[in-house]
Amino acid sequence: MYDLIIIGAGPAGLTASIYASRYKMNHLVVGEIPGGLISQAHNVCNFPTYKEISGFELMEKMKNHAKDLGGQIMSMEKVVKIKKEKEIFKLETESGKTLEAKSVLLATGTKYRKLGLADEARLTGRGVAYCATCDAMFFKEKVVGVVGAGNSAMTAALYLSEVAKKVYLIVRSDKLKGEMVWADNILANEKIEVLFETNVTKLNGENKLESVDLDREVAGSKNLVLDGFFIEIGTEPDTTLFDMLGVEVDKGYIVVDNKQKTNIDGLWSAGDITTGSGLFRQVITACSEGAVAAYDIFSYLQKIKDGDNQ
Amino acid sequence: MYDLIIIGAGPAGLTASIYASRYKMNHLVVGEIPGGLISQAHNVCNFPTYKEISGFELMEKMKNHAKDLGGQIMSMEKVVKIKKEKEIFKLETESGKTLEAKSVLLATGTKYRKLGLADEARLTGRGVAYCATCDAMFFKEKVVGVVGAGNSAMTAALYLSEVAKKVYLIVRSDKLKGEMVWADNILANEKIEVLFETNVTKLNGENKLESVDLDREVAGSKNLVLDGFFIEIGTEPDTTLFDMLGVEVDKGYIVVDNKQKTNIDGLWSAGDITTGSGLFRQVITACSEGAVAAYDIFSYLQKIKDGDNQ
Repeated sequence: MYDLIIIGAGPAGLTASIYASRYKMNHLVVGEIPGGLISQAHNVCNFPTYKEISGFELMEKMKNHAKDLGGQIMSMEKVVKIKKEKEIFKLETESGKTLEAKSVLLATGTKYRKLGLADEARLTGRGVAYCATCDAMFFKEKVVGVVGAGNSAMTAALYLSEVAKKVYLIVRSDKLKGEMVWADNILANEKIEVLFETNVTKLNGENKLESVDLDREVAGSKNLVLDGFFIEIGTEPDTTLFDMLGVEVDKGYIVVDNKQKTNIDGLWSAGDITTGSGLFRQVITACSEGAVAAYDIFSYLQKIKDGDNQ
Repeated sequence: MYDLIIIGAGPAGLTASIYASRYKMNHLVVGEIPGGLISQAHNVCNFPTYKEISGFELMEKMKNHAKDLGGQIMSMEKVVKIKKEKEIFKLETESGKTLEAKSVLLATGTKYRKLGLADEARLTGRGVAYCATCDAMFFKEKVVGVVGAGNSAMTAALYLSEVAKKVYLIVRSDKLKGEMVWADNILANEKIEVLFETNVTKLNGENKLESVDLDREVAGSKNLVLDGFFIEIGTEPDTTLFDMLGVEVDKGYIVVDNKQKTNIDGLWSAGDITTGSGLFRQVITACSEGAVAAYDIFSYLQKIKDGDNQ
């Protein structure tokens, strides 16, 4: 029986573990992706103290910090079932492990948002991709498209431009969003062509992606020949576990108070899956939320213990 | 005329600068203490990715990150006056500089809390101190007292035990608060004697501190002979600037919404002076609040600009 089980091993989960160790809480981190989705980011430039660091390296450091303090991390393991019986949370993992805890911190982050096109699932891994850092190398000297207008799309396009022959950045609206530094770099990059006010309507290809259809003509044709197509339109939470517990959500994200508490007693949530930090979803905000949650859980467990002693 | 002036060069202010640079906002950081109060901390063990780092080194890294991205930092400079005229903030510094900005982020942090004893001010710097990291070396092989029960008091006592001959940790209640790791280390340390349920009632000494009076007998006497006395009972905000602007406060701390906005249009606040992050005041929460504020200020300035163009 753990004092606390942290579900998710990204910035929120690992920082919560760091604080939990400092407060000597008996806890376990269960994470599907060690380091979380950010560990796949090519380049992180806004985590304070690091001018430039890969997502992988940043999260390795965070994971080592958590481990050095005694945090137990069960990686590559997905929690598939969760329920609360009396005051105890009972969890089941994909590989069949059962776990119990007095409190739970949900920090499962988000997954890539799909574009919703007919053959998207069929062509994923066959030219269609969601992670430039992971898959860019398959497109050396090839022609690729990136769809999206935010930081993920811009950094994906910039990274791909270092590898690919040509990058089309396909943007629905008439402007780029997110950090201006990225936008400037995009516009100054000769390998990147931005197609504003353009939507992809269809993916074409038998065994692998061959081209995409657009809703307007580009260079005289509505068909754009591509070897790779990166969908970088943001992320969304996986709501499976929330539904099992009856957690209150707002537009798909877990509603938390200023101490990261959910509507369920004994359940906290931190990071990108929550409504915290004014919806500004960054590594630094996720870390902060993890710390706040861990401290509030510590106070909660102290109160339970004090109650037991009386 | 700046888009943004950030008052305070601690974790909140510097992270806000990092984000402001990424968003290409024309901004200035004005800070009394470069790195903020945390730069005086002997040891920081809970900032994610650093298992152990001095406050000074951590904040040097953060300052360099902010500077490398183009952030201008005016150090050792105190803002003494601030007013809002029409939509513009006008600031005056101690050295007589006048500055103007469209938006302001107040991130001035906190200052050391006083014990409130009669001769406290007179004996400060003459045996009475508030910063173990700064002043420990004056007490090599001497006998010192530390008053307080939280993380600052515990880390001060631990650090002093490396230098001094004997350390009394004077605690009002019957237990230590804060991180359990520190509490364990305190109790295991032979040089440190914890005096629980004890209060200091008087400071004695002509030209320098000679002893303190206690409200109960310790080893047969209510008088404790000390060479040094460290007051580590936490921090509180300096409210001078808030009062000038009419900022809404709660128990002395600036009330902010989930985007770090205050009740004054164009004014944001982040870090230890605010009610943010569920009152859990840490380096990581201050950084996060600075980031959230910078992003919201960016959106605000974009809206103003769009308004101008129409």
